[in-house]
Amino acid sequence: MGRVTERRKVIRIRDGAVSSRPDTLVAEEPLEIRLNGKPIAVTMRTPGDDFALAAGFLVSEGVLGSAADLVNIVYCAGATADGSNTYNVVDVTTAPGVRLPDFTLERNVYTTSSCGLCGKASLDAVRTTARWPIADTPQLRVDPGLLARLPDRLRAAQRVFDRTGGLHAAALFGEDGELLDIREDVGRHNAVDKLIGRALQNGQLPLSRAILLVSGRASFELAQKAVMAGIPVLAAVSAPSSLAVDLAAETGLTLVGFLRGSSMNVYAGHERVLVEAAARS
Amino acid sequence: MGRVTERRKVIRIRDGAVSSRPDTLVAEEPLEIRLNGKPIAVTMRTPGDDFALAAGFLVSEGVLGSAADLVNIVYCAGATADGSNTYNVVDVTTAPGVRLPDFTLERNVYTTSSCGLCGKASLDAVRTTARWPIADTPQLRVDPGLLARLPDRLRAAQRVFDRTGGLHAAALFGEDGELLDIREDVGRHNAVDKLIGRALQNGQLPLSRAILLVSGRASFELAQKAVMAGIPVLAAVSAPSSLAVDLAAETGLTLVGFLRGSSMNVYAGHERVLVEAAARS
Repeated sequence: MGRVTERRKVIRIRDGAVSSRPDTLVAEEPLEIRLNGKPIAVTMRTPGDDFALAAGFLVSEGVLGSAADLVNIVYCAGATADGSNTYNVVDVTTAPGVRLPDFTLERNVYTTSSCGLCGKASLDAVRTTARWPIADTPQLRVDPGLLARLPDRLRAAQRVFDRTGGLHAAALFGEDGELLDIREDVGRHNAVDKLIGRALQNGQLPLSRAILLVSGRASFELAQKAVMAGIPVLAAVSAPSSLAVDLAAETGLTLVGFLRGSSMNVYAGHERVLVEAAARS
Repeated sequence: MGRVTERRKVIRIRDGAVSSRPDTLVAEEPLEIRLNGKPIAVTMRTPGDDFALAAGFLVSEGVLGSAADLVNIVYCAGATADGSNTYNVVDVTTAPGVRLPDFTLERNVYTTSSCGLCGKASLDAVRTTARWPIADTPQLRVDPGLLARLPDRLRAAQRVFDRTGGLHAAALFGEDGELLDIREDVGRHNAVDKLIGRALQNGQLPLSRAILLVSGRASFELAQKAVMAGIPVLAAVSAPSSLAVDLAAETGLTLVGFLRGSSMNVYAGHERVLVEAAARS
């Protein structure tokens, strides 16, 4: 439990020199998420913040919207042959009245027809389950200079990456650029779920004044998680995908990619980025 | 169909200069994989090589082992309201006698007990479903100098990445370092599945003389795919996870990480890496 890193012996080859030494690796373990006793998902994650991960996953899936929707989260123990707890199974109990979707493999597919799966259907699914519109009231405006400073702050706050090189990071920043929270995980979606789950537990959803920064690329899945948590700005150090841009454009999410140095691309929701300030600076 | 990239308008900010221009993005669309008519998985992928992706996925899952196991793969058409084909649903028909696992959410979990999910169980699941042992007969030996040259070859062969910056790449190399095949995808696991699916279709499984190189990190899932295809060497440009190293050590897979310049770390299966040659050079 909470093994963020593990040590393994490694043979290192550097310019012809061979040495053997212990190396620090990012820990990866499966986590099974149960909803009221029923298994709904297994994700490969870095142990730690498992309750936040489960809560955030269920926000992304449209099940949870506030701390009041949640009765408790526990590690499921005692059912192994030797009665031990692996700390790799969590069970989330929801409050009465919380509407539970049908978690099946077909769930995301069969909302409309049996053979029409397409990007558009994926966009529609997010739109119909989103709890909070990404509205612009009150207005949130972000200076490009502020955005440009965030990757360095993210990197400075990454503790485990420096030791393992194996972690994705995601962070929430306030509109003034202050770091609100940062999570690291072997899976980028897990890092975002952990952030959002923490916010839910702290009664902070929707995150309507926050900026979400991710260390890698911006996929559809990450844009979906931002939208489901009511986050108005998603910034990524690397490239977005076409479907992430389409989802951002459709929901009003501001999507910034290739945020490096003083450069960035704004793919959607450009009204929140003060480009006049950039042009003046 | 086959839209590897898409164009979107972007606002670019460079050192205070603001411009608007079209940008090339990596395409991302959902793909539903059906097995004999039954939906078993949905993956977000870059369109193209969809049949290979489906076939490779089913190799990784232990369903397919040779081209003879496969009757055909088709795009599923005609069930949308307007009768159109989205080219995002494929149906794989297996030959009589192919044993079909029970594809449920619980599948990976309930092999042993109801609450004992752990890394060890994940390792066991791969070991019990692997078709080919990663044996060392005939011996495969790889010079570190040869491994060091592979990332440049991978990068030179990446066509889409240069335009979008948004793709993961995976490539198969022969034991002499020749590039056998390369696939790019928005999802790293898809790129590997496309390689393995192609190999299955060409009657090349197990890939017992091949080196698999991935552009990013080496997760448990990627190590699993290598093992399931009988690939003896997995090399990654970035870090491996703890569970990837454990799986490699347990199955005999050679796992190389941080393959950069003339440096690399060998995490498992070091007998296949000619470190004496490195020490001499």
